[in-house]
Amino acid sequence: MAKDMTLLWGSGSVPSWRVMITLEEKQLQGYNQKLISLQKKEHKTQEVLDINPRGQVPTFKCGNHILNESYGACFFLENQYKSQGTKLIPDSPDAQALVYQRMFEVLTLHHKTVDVFLYNYLVPEGERHDAAVQRNREALATEIKLWEGYLNKTDCCLAGKEFTLADVVFFPSVAFLFRLGLSRERHPVLAKYYNSLKDRPSIKATWPPHWQTSPELDMLKTI
Amino acid sequence: MAKDMTLLWGSGSVPSWRVMITLEEKQLQGYNQKLISLQKKEHKTQEVLDINPRGQVPTFKCGNHILNESYGACFFLENQYKSQGTKLIPDSPDAQALVYQRMFEVLTLHHKTVDVFLYNYLVPEGERHDAAVQRNREALATEIKLWEGYLNKTDCCLAGKEFTLADVVFFPSVAFLFRLGLSRERHPVLAKYYNSLKDRPSIKATWPPHWQTSPELDMLKTI
Repeated sequence: MAKDMTLLWGSGSVPSWRVMITLEEKQLQGYNQKLISLQKKEHKTQEVLDINPRGQVPTFKCGNHILNESYGACFFLENQYKSQGTKLIPDSPDAQALVYQRMFEVLTLHHKTVDVFLYNYLVPEGERHDAAVQRNREALATEIKLWEGYLNKTDCCLAGKEFTLADVVFFPSVAFLFRLGLSRERHPVLAKYYNSLKDRPSIKATWPPHWQTSPELDMLKTI
Repeated sequence: MAKDMTLLWGSGSVPSWRVMITLEEKQLQGYNQKLISLQKKEHKTQEVLDINPRGQVPTFKCGNHILNESYGACFFLENQYKSQGTKLIPDSPDAQALVYQRMFEVLTLHHKTVDVFLYNYLVPEGERHDAAVQRNREALATEIKLWEGYLNKTDCCLAGKEFTLADVVFFPSVAFLFRLGLSRERHPVLAKYYNSLKDRPSIKATWPPHWQTSPELDMLKTI
């Protein structure tokens, strides 16, 4: 069935990575895929725009269904392949509530990370302010502390002992933070989570290729 | 069962409204609720922070489960009360894919609306730029056009003939746009959608109270 799926993705794109991890966990390897260069702005080409009018990655077709929103794609795949591969949404109300709560909180972490990472891209030169940069960094630091508190209270995974959709969407954000230079020494709880999952087959198989050949950045070193 | 639920909400808060519509659709009336004044910053009081460390509305407890993220609350309620009230996630893969795709796209519409509506609140006085205001407005106008295209291709509801979770999250955003003064004449497709759902019992019962007693704004009049 995976042969009926096509994913256009970007290396290091957190939303793309979420979908790729889900496809692995649901044993849907063998889908058609194309690596899109964000630097060359290939996400703004007609090939992408025909499926995804916002010109973003991931751009994902599953049969005739278009599921470009990463969360939408993850939910759809989990629902359509419920009994195949890893069960990503637990049945027990306790675990399920925590999965839903955490996975949508991840969007805030992601936005706060992007506000720091893409500041110069999002804000034209004449409109940049050091105070805004500082504010964005402080907001991200506060957000990271919140997640460390959450992780302190759980087992290996974000919503308990099992790997769930909460980890599918959270892990790429954590990996991105370390890629941007977040200190593992100053963030041991996050580092422990990262280390416990980085070699999971679904994650290893989908690791952003350019991260493997280029060094980590130092943007978040002082956070 | 609704007696076991407590919702702290804000009048006109789009995320709060999503949860309230879901509670109505799932026939979960009779929950405990408290209207929080955002103007008086009651969302930053200890009562809210104890449940919701980000100090936001909605703040929602369902039994012992904390579901402050509006999408998480909607998913949880739909899943726990599948056979009660309106079925908000359809079974057919076609309809389901469209519901998932559209409901997550709504987050982009919401962010672009907030960027315009809250510009002066989010950006300190010395850092404001007319060019940014203009850019935000243009981004919102482009986004609105996209949704008009989507609505042109559907029946009464966002993902087909049935009212789904896509409408639960989309309708409050549409209502908010008109509240901010979006022209019904220049946006007849959005206006038709709005008119077809504004008197739906779940929506009418949860209409933001202060919208009923104060006039619409004119912020989006020229979009």
